[in-house]
Amino acid sequence: MISKYKLFQERIEKEIKILDFFTEPKRLYEPIDYILSIGGKRLRPVLLLMGCDLFHGDIEKAIEAAIGVEVFHNFTLLHDDVMDNASIRRNRTTVHTKWDINTAILSGDAMAIKAYEFIAKCETKYLKQVLGVFNRFALQVCEGQQFDMDYENKNDVSVKQYLNMIRLKTAVLIAGGLNIGAILAGADEKNCYHMHRFGENIGMAFQLQDDYLDVYGDVDKFGKQIGGDIISNKKTFLLVSAIENAGNEEREELLNWFSETDFDPQEKIQSITGIYNQLNIGEKTKSKMEEYLRLALLDLNKVDVLNNTKTELEEIAWNLTKRLS
Amino acid sequence: MISKYKLFQERIEKEIKILDFFTEPKRLYEPIDYILSIGGKRLRPVLLLMGCDLFHGDIEKAIEAAIGVEVFHNFTLLHDDVMDNASIRRNRTTVHTKWDINTAILSGDAMAIKAYEFIAKCETKYLKQVLGVFNRFALQVCEGQQFDMDYENKNDVSVKQYLNMIRLKTAVLIAGGLNIGAILAGADEKNCYHMHRFGENIGMAFQLQDDYLDVYGDVDKFGKQIGGDIISNKKTFLLVSAIENAGNEEREELLNWFSETDFDPQEKIQSITGIYNQLNIGEKTKSKMEEYLRLALLDLNKVDVLNNTKTELEEIAWNLTKRLS
Repeated sequence: MISKYKLFQERIEKEIKILDFFTEPKRLYEPIDYILSIGGKRLRPVLLLMGCDLFHGDIEKAIEAAIGVEVFHNFTLLHDDVMDNASIRRNRTTVHTKWDINTAILSGDAMAIKAYEFIAKCETKYLKQVLGVFNRFALQVCEGQQFDMDYENKNDVSVKQYLNMIRLKTAVLIAGGLNIGAILAGADEKNCYHMHRFGENIGMAFQLQDDYLDVYGDVDKFGKQIGGDIISNKKTFLLVSAIENAGNEEREELLNWFSETDFDPQEKIQSITGIYNQLNIGEKTKSKMEEYLRLALLDLNKVDVLNNTKTELEEIAWNLTKRLS
Repeated sequence: MISKYKLFQERIEKEIKILDFFTEPKRLYEPIDYILSIGGKRLRPVLLLMGCDLFHGDIEKAIEAAIGVEVFHNFTLLHDDVMDNASIRRNRTTVHTKWDINTAILSGDAMAIKAYEFIAKCETKYLKQVLGVFNRFALQVCEGQQFDMDYENKNDVSVKQYLNMIRLKTAVLIAGGLNIGAILAGADEKNCYHMHRFGENIGMAFQLQDDYLDVYGDVDKFGKQIGGDIISNKKTFLLVSAIENAGNEEREELLNWFSETDFDPQEKIQSITGIYNQLNIGEKTKSKMEEYLRLALLDLNKVDVLNNTKTELEEIAWNLTKRLS
């Protein structure tokens, strides 16, 4: 990745390391320290700082909001893992597996509140506006997770419904972070709007790339098992597109695989990937991703700052959709 | 109860009735509507409005914060019921029993965010201060719930530890509501402090009365089964005081009852109530309650408004500790 991203990422890591979660009761705060220390790309807080930096804001005044967004993101992961019954996240045991479900629920709740504590530390003159953006995407993320769960046992999810779901579950948080960064740099409403839209569109592309990599990723670089989504019947852009584009025969084969409980995983992956190939789903996904990337760049283009300062955000957008892991 | 309480209570009920939770996804919002409509005393939001009214504030400007506090309180009940595996609350099926655990987790999360949405609607000039109070008690409530769970399987909880736990779990939310009400009326720091302390102390007395009623309440008026806490080995002021005050023989009898899994409920209730009577625990609880009530009234006394305007709050404090249900 590019230098400013790295710089901000290191800043975020440093800030997270010095957070003091070693107070009583231990069982409430240890899991928070645990999940935050596991790391990840820190994409959301870094983008928030980049949003601030783009308008020549002082990133020191945006650090706490950035941490707030990262804490909130990790809170949603913590609770999502309980709801999805996931035992591994980023190669580490999930909180409810390492401790128990009650601990995961309550530590998650405390994290959500902690996130607001960080947000509340921003400059008073921006607080109402920042909080408005934060509350909005926070609720949307819950809505997205609910739609995701609703769709689990539904075989007729449309591409449109799926795209709305990932917009709520994933894209708006990235958008909101960029928006908050811009607000904290004193950007005007129009610029904040375009930053939000830019973030929403790269968020969409980001999730589509995630879906794509599950099927067409390089196993060594992806870091996850290829075909995991296929095995678990997870609704992805590839799957809902395949269902929409399938002829009767292919649809029946897909539906048969959904109801199969006793199967050879490799055979299921091969068969469904075969259908995807037949229907050209890989290309369709790539082209949808590029559509969002184009939209993102159009919005970035409308942001009123010198074009050469936008280069890094453009590169991040490109890299997100070309990433291999 | 007294007339202003009733007036404000009706105002809160009306406000909750018109909340629009009928948006999509239904499964996220229906449980929120369900738990909020069940009702209860609306003690916390009413006290917030009374705190505002005491300083001649415009309660119309405090209504949304009051709703925020009530929504937050109900969010904690929703998640606590999951953690405590409780199937009934206020004579109605709990959310995780009526729907499922995932629904309870996610709807709860959405409620916490909704609470912040309401809080964020207060006058901009008070937002930072209000949010500071809110964040602080919100986190403390989580800490209290964690201590409560930690103490479940611990037989040497001291009276001091127990009192700190109920302070965090119950008292600070009542205190915070009164504090926010005062802030929104433009009260100064000293007055806000005394309102907070008044709330914390009546909150303590309130919880002690709850503990007392479980053993010495009138079954017809209490509305819950007498001895429920005794049967489930729940740590209460009565129990931890009994353990602290017990001689060897009584302590052994208490510990035996804790480990007993196959018992006649009435026999257990009778035996433990017998120990409480022997050790004068009922009187000790009453006297601790009165101690908190006295402290509460001392703080209310220090609030800089005309004494005759405080009468209703004084009566509420008295009534909370004399209530039969």
